[in-house]
Amino acid sequence: VTDLAAALFTTPAMAAVFSAEARVRRMLDFEAALARAQARAGVIPAGAAAAIGTACRVERLDLGAIAREAAVVGTPVVPLARMLGDLVGGEARRYVHWGATSQDAIDTGMVLQARDGLELLEEGLLGIAATGAVLAERHRATPMAGRTLLQHALPITFGLKAARWLALATRQVGRLRQLRPRVLVVQLGGAAGTLASLGSDGPSVMALLAEELGLAAPELPWHAERDRIGELAAALGVVAGGMAKIAGDLVLLAQTEVGEVAEAAVEGKGGSSALPQKRNPVDATMALAAARLAIGQVPTVLGAMAQEHERAAGAWQAEWAAVPDLFRFTAGAVEGVRRALEGLEVDADRMRRNLDASGGLILAESLATALAQRVGRPEAQRIVRDVCDRVRRDGADLTAAALADERVAALLTPDAIGRALDPLAYLGAADAFVDRALAAHREILGTVPADR
Amino acid sequence: VTDLAAALFTTPAMAAVFSAEARVRRMLDFEAALARAQARAGVIPAGAAAAIGTACRVERLDLGAIAREAAVVGTPVVPLARMLGDLVGGEARRYVHWGATSQDAIDTGMVLQARDGLELLEEGLLGIAATGAVLAERHRATPMAGRTLLQHALPITFGLKAARWLALATRQVGRLRQLRPRVLVVQLGGAAGTLASLGSDGPSVMALLAEELGLAAPELPWHAERDRIGELAAALGVVAGGMAKIAGDLVLLAQTEVGEVAEAAVEGKGGSSALPQKRNPVDATMALAAARLAIGQVPTVLGAMAQEHERAAGAWQAEWAAVPDLFRFTAGAVEGVRRALEGLEVDADRMRRNLDASGGLILAESLATALAQRVGRPEAQRIVRDVCDRVRRDGADLTAAALADERVAALLTPDAIGRALDPLAYLGAADAFVDRALAAHREILGTVPADR
Amino acid sequence: VTDLAAALFTTPAMAAVFSAEARVRRMLDFEAALARAQARAGVIPAGAAAAIGTACRVERLDLGAIAREAAVVGTPVVPLARMLGDLVGGEARRYVHWGATSQDAIDTGMVLQARDGLELLEEGLLGIAATGAVLAERHRATPMAGRTLLQHALPITFGLKAARWLALATRQVGRLRQLRPRVLVVQLGGAAGTLASLGSDGPSVMALLAEELGLAAPELPWHAERDRIGELAAALGVVAGGMAKIAGDLVLLAQTEVGEVAEAAVEGKGGSSALPQKRNPVDATMALAAARLAIGQVPTVLGAMAQEHERAAGAWQAEWAAVPDLFRFTAGAVEGVRRALEGLEVDADRMRRNLDASGGLILAESLATALAQRVGRPEAQRIVRDVCDRVRRDGADLTAAALADERVAALLTPDAIGRALDPLAYLGAADAFVDRALAAHREILGTVPADR
Amino acid sequence: VTDLAAALFTTPAMAAVFSAEARVRRMLDFEAALARAQARAGVIPAGAAAAIGTACRVERLDLGAIAREAAVVGTPVVPLARMLGDLVGGEARRYVHWGATSQDAIDTGMVLQARDGLELLEEGLLGIAATGAVLAERHRATPMAGRTLLQHALPITFGLKAARWLALATRQVGRLRQLRPRVLVVQLGGAAGTLASLGSDGPSVMALLAEELGLAAPELPWHAERDRIGELAAALGVVAGGMAKIAGDLVLLAQTEVGEVAEAAVEGKGGSSALPQKRNPVDATMALAAARLAIGQVPTVLGAMAQEHERAAGAWQAEWAAVPDLFRFTAGAVEGVRRALEGLEVDADRMRRNLDASGGLILAESLATALAQRVGRPEAQRIVRDVCDRVRRDGADLTAAALADERVAALLTPDAIGRALDPLAYLGAADAFVDRALAAHREILGTVPADR
Repeated sequence: VTDLAAALFTTPAMAAVFSAEARVRRMLDFEAALARAQARAGVIPAGAAAAIGTACRVERLDLGAIAREAAVVGTPVVPLARMLGDLVGGEARRYVHWGATSQDAIDTGMVLQARDGLELLEEGLLGIAATGAVLAERHRATPMAGRTLLQHALPITFGLKAARWLALATRQVGRLRQLRPRVLVVQLGGAAGTLASLGSDGPSVMALLAEELGLAAPELPWHAERDRIGELAAALGVVAGGMAKIAGDLVLLAQTEVGEVAEAAVEGKGGSSALPQKRNPVDATMALAAARLAIGQVPTVLGAMAQEHERAAGAWQAEWAAVPDLFRFTAGAVEGVRRALEGLEVDADRMRRNLDASGGLILAESLATALAQRVGRPEAQRIVRDVCDRVRRDGADLTAAALADERVAALLTPDAIGRALDPLAYLGAADAFVDRALAAHREILGTVPADR
Repeated sequence: VTDLAAALFTTPAMAAVFSAEARVRRMLDFEAALARAQARAGVIPAGAAAAIGTACRVERLDLGAIAREAAVVGTPVVPLARMLGDLVGGEARRYVHWGATSQDAIDTGMVLQARDGLELLEEGLLGIAATGAVLAERHRATPMAGRTLLQHALPITFGLKAARWLALATRQVGRLRQLRPRVLVVQLGGAAGTLASLGSDGPSVMALLAEELGLAAPELPWHAERDRIGELAAALGVVAGGMAKIAGDLVLLAQTEVGEVAEAAVEGKGGSSALPQKRNPVDATMALAAARLAIGQVPTVLGAMAQEHERAAGAWQAEWAAVPDLFRFTAGAVEGVRRALEGLEVDADRMRRNLDASGGLILAESLATALAQRVGRPEAQRIVRDVCDRVRRDGADLTAAALADERVAALLTPDAIGRALDPLAYLGAADAFVDRALAAHREILGTVPADR
Repeated sequence: VTDLAAALFTTPAMAAVFSAEARVRRMLDFEAALARAQARAGVIPAGAAAAIGTACRVERLDLGAIAREAAVVGTPVVPLARMLGDLVGGEARRYVHWGATSQDAIDTGMVLQARDGLELLEEGLLGIAATGAVLAERHRATPMAGRTLLQHALPITFGLKAARWLALATRQVGRLRQLRPRVLVVQLGGAAGTLASLGSDGPSVMALLAEELGLAAPELPWHAERDRIGELAAALGVVAGGMAKIAGDLVLLAQTEVGEVAEAAVEGKGGSSALPQKRNPVDATMALAAARLAIGQVPTVLGAMAQEHERAAGAWQAEWAAVPDLFRFTAGAVEGVRRALEGLEVDADRMRRNLDASGGLILAESLATALAQRVGRPEAQRIVRDVCDRVRRDGADLTAAALADERVAALLTPDAIGRALDPLAYLGAADAFVDRALAAHREILGTVPADR
Repeated sequence: VTDLAAALFTTPAMAAVFSAEARVRRMLDFEAALARAQARAGVIPAGAAAAIGTACRVERLDLGAIAREAAVVGTPVVPLARMLGDLVGGEARRYVHWGATSQDAIDTGMVLQARDGLELLEEGLLGIAATGAVLAERHRATPMAGRTLLQHALPITFGLKAARWLALATRQVGRLRQLRPRVLVVQLGGAAGTLASLGSDGPSVMALLAEELGLAAPELPWHAERDRIGELAAALGVVAGGMAKIAGDLVLLAQTEVGEVAEAAVEGKGGSSALPQKRNPVDATMALAAARLAIGQVPTVLGAMAQEHERAAGAWQAEWAAVPDLFRFTAGAVEGVRRALEGLEVDADRMRRNLDASGGLILAESLATALAQRVGRPEAQRIVRDVCDRVRRDGADLTAAALADERVAALLTPDAIGRALDPLAYLGAADAFVDRALAAHREILGTVPADR
């Protein structure tokens, strides 16, 4: 059991992708593919490649010993390569890790983990989008209060709010897809980025290695130019930030005084050790925590881009912890939002009651717009501000106060006032925007990343 | 005069793009374009649009008064819209800021500033790439020590190092270009993102507004979904991180004990208030400082993505300072590197002397590679490690020690030993990698962003 | 006019402390005090010190020229020392900046600015504490809903909430005071931290300089050991984080659906460019934005602690912008909270209505506690959970449901149930805690920092 | 085996303090102490407290089940309290977790872990200080180049450099000690911070609980006022930043071209998978990585200080991962530096050779100082700049060039020139500063924190 926190802020699937075992397995994938690529290029015997491939099984390595030795030598690849050599044995042993450097194995391994991680994130985001699309469609006519600076502003629909979440998730998917060709790139440079020990075969081995692993080949090794890792980290930070937006909205909507949504009731979920009546928005809360933790890794990775010469002392190594944590926590944020949205209880009646609770003040702009067509915007705003003051002072509602105001009455018929103060009649393009978000979602579902 | 620091960590051009005046000018551009779009859509009279367009001149507004009033009301748009109305006057006045909300003007204004800022950054990066390409070509046969963890590792060429800088800058240009369609997007949503006061004309006005400003139209307003701003900020952070890598290398290469490069001598540059002999790498130093400052803004922007409901209280407003600072400091980092590279003094002799200073130890891998073809990698490494120990112990050079070692002598002829220990013969794909970086550079010079 | 944002996220007083002019003035204070100290130590003639002191007037220097030249030479002190020399003239000129290095002037100047900045922050925090104390006292019997995870939990009093803000502000004052002796320390080391050009007079000149400026003398120069600056920055980040807590509470309490507080009504404050009925919590919003911006500087300063050798290339220079920004934004956060609290409108009726709105569910724990004394905590919680479910299902209130429950009726009299469900009877130590916070406040008012 | 990275960037001791098991054990310590305190206050029967105390053994709980259930309910305390109740059984069961809330157990548990963590950090820092003191004393007369912006500036001694590291570590110890009374504080507030279910016994139970645990009692509960946690996090960030300074110096001094220090040779340490001759500064490298990772947690904790109302949704929970990681990584940074310094190989000859390598240019200021006493600083600097230019142009050394310069010869005798250009004669207060650092170290060794 790792620390409790690990159980709360990630998913088992992402934890598996970035486990100690997976890290070693992915480095072994590199070693095996490198041997195959070199065999294809005629650099090493085909038999050696086969023997190496056979030995590259994580079950056969002592992970604890690798970790202990890594702490002395400063890299896990020195013990890994030696143990692998021992497993391969015979003539083939000499071709283990041929021409490569530690960083080639570590970086390519991490890129392979990142590819798996990106798939998981995309899947989670598509799950959010799917639920978002259902909510957007179902609630396109459910009016609710739009809130700016947490104050009632104008009516919107819950469908529009869900459509914005949907559009956000859809854009995130698109964003993660488009960076794949730039980021999912093999690393192979040898000790100083020249592939010197491969003589003139370096570039062709690099190309074949990329092919073997289904990754792109870079123009040249990138041991100390970490813009790809920076871009990857930044993209995950953007995903996490987006999750925090949705989760934050859910927590606010679930407030006792607002009560417009609640996370699906699950036995034991959201309870309190002290309060029997509590039903906490647990999934959204965990998403918010995970998103904070994810974003916190981004500057670490960006700050670590200043890597010295041909390999860095410290900045590169910091990636070994920061990048996995970034994936773990981003997955936790995505999963928290996915779960919170799935089976979300939406209280349309409460939305309507909240909308009406301010006595129509939320439609002040609508009234002002109706008046503005007669007297211009500034004068209209002055009139409506006065009427609103009266509503607040006297506790009346806006319809009554508007009907009673001489200036309003002189400009608008009672019917026109009624229309102006009907929330369903003042939703502008809400419906059209829902359609546009749904269309964008359908479009992304119909496309597949270029590299798949 | 703003604080001294402002003079050091940005460029005058970027400072101008993000000046107080430019911010207001860009918001006025929004107001004028909105009026034109609404006139084209038949929402407001053409004459009103013309009158508004004429009034939208930053010289006619009192910027100080806007700032003072903004501090009370919490947004600069309330005073701006009123003052603009006063300037427009007459009937047209009522159509000022029609259907829009503060955030529409502020966000679109910031996007317009960002577009200018991105152009400047791209220009700077292309300048770095151009110098990098010259250095890569000129020094493709200039050997130097490759260094990992700041220790001599293997020979490389200075051309390869420059090619890596070049490739980094080239990728950054590509990265900034590809995000433009996603990020350079108009904002228009009205008070709660429904464009309610425009009735059913909202989407068409939004499309026309985007056309007027040369921006893309989003699927729906994004007042509180800030993934675009997050992506923009993250991309700038990646640019800044890349600059820190290059600048850091320059500072390290300029160390007194290394002395392989020096920034171009300029009267008064890099002096000290105490030390007459000093010649500091000033431009690289300022780039490093600016890059740190730039990266420091990224988590602020990402952390501020959790924006409440339809408009945030605090998180959005934090962008008003963080995004401009991010552009300013990133520009400072790019400019520092550009200047440091321009006219960089490269001391090829010193590079060679440093390369040779360790008595050939830097070619230990080359010797091991030659031996490995006979006895396999592990045995070869053991032999070479022994020989290296002798070099370090006795102060001999590696050639002599290798010739004197019985095991080596049994496996390699003196000639083969000589070849193995010639740095120019152990550069692997360095030259090919230079070509690839140059090709990628030529390619980006031949393409133009889709949206230009 | 600097950018609009500058007007919103700091105070004029703090802006003045960290203006370009103040920076130069504080460096001149250093130069003048250094000369006096050296005269007292017999290192330079008394007449020279007098002449230098007379010349050290910021009005006599061309700040623009200093900034321009600083951008070339990499430090403002080279031009400053030269211009100062020109002003001093004659024999005394040779003693300008005697024995010092740029960093001595820049660091000591920044420490002097920091001292002013800390005073302003302390003043602001004491203002918050004063208002907090009034609110705590006035509302110690004003019941309101306590909320955990934004859900009703138990009754508290608004006085307790204010007492927690008060205690927070009080602790911040204590925290800022206690770090002064560690942080407000003179810098004097000469070019490499040995004060070599002062021979054996270094330590005594350092001590006299510290005395002249009212700062502490460090055990040795700290040009590249920045723990003091790191601690200072961290402390400001903690202040800013505390402000975000209070401001966040205010924004949440001001929500339309909660409506328990409102910022003082000021003509034009908190309005909207579109919505005539809006009254936004502007000061709290600006505090939240400023706090984010302040905290964003902290990792930049901490990350910049890794300063190379005897003076850093880049990391130190980054402080020149980050530390002033940190003070500016922290001041903005403190001021926003101070203003928001001052004249805060507290709606005790609304607090009571919100407290009662859940039909007494908020007192579920109280009922469980009463029952637990009879049947133990687990069984009590089971009973109360059932009763609460009935309340939620049937819309009844908790008192009625409790009276109707057989198990409850068997254990508690109607009277006991009534007492258990009276919020005023279930406030525990709220009152005592208010007293303790007030006492801590009185204590800090009665003490003065050791160094004043 | 957790991920490899975990093995590299922390210590086993700190990993144990923040293990899953330790977290639960510390929460059980809270529950047991709470029961004892309540028995002493007469709130629960003494027998119940004894039974609870007996049951509070981490070995008896199923940690995996706690983690799984915590992921559903959102807090580990709900399952923990239930399991503990089951273990206690009988009458006493009802008094388990009496009057407390989840957060009381979690926060107090974390404070107890933090106390252990602080002890470990202090111990590590004292180890660094001890080695630093030895190095400072031993090398107080070992001259080396002082370097600013990585350029030779003036001679210093290695003893002075070590004294600065010593002073830094000493100050860090002082800093960690002085915050203990402010930070090591018990949490006890009950569900909403009123201790309502304890009636009027709340404050006395809190005081007794604090006594039981050896912690301080706060003025009131601090569930949502996290300045103490912020201060703690910030202090660790400052420690980590200080470690990065020392580790960075070590990496720079160990560069092949500088070669002034090397980490102690350990079989297998610092090797490379490709390069037989490599000896990498592994411990300093790992310290640099760990310091980056530690600092990266600080803004997460500070940003999470904005906690809503009486308990936060997300911000508080983020601490559960960020604070332990901060301790883990800070310990890794401290340990890396401690190990790197222990047995550090110092090459005094190389220091002298590097110092002399620039032909005496490093003593330019000394020459200028000698001249300045005759012709004033500006003229002296002009003369010396000319002489230095000649040295650089002609490759001569500064002594020869100075003797050959007419202006110098007219002002100084050959003897005076010789004295001016002797590095050992231009060390200023280096020795005195070493003494002061040693004295501060002795002082801290002689004091013990007030709370121990």
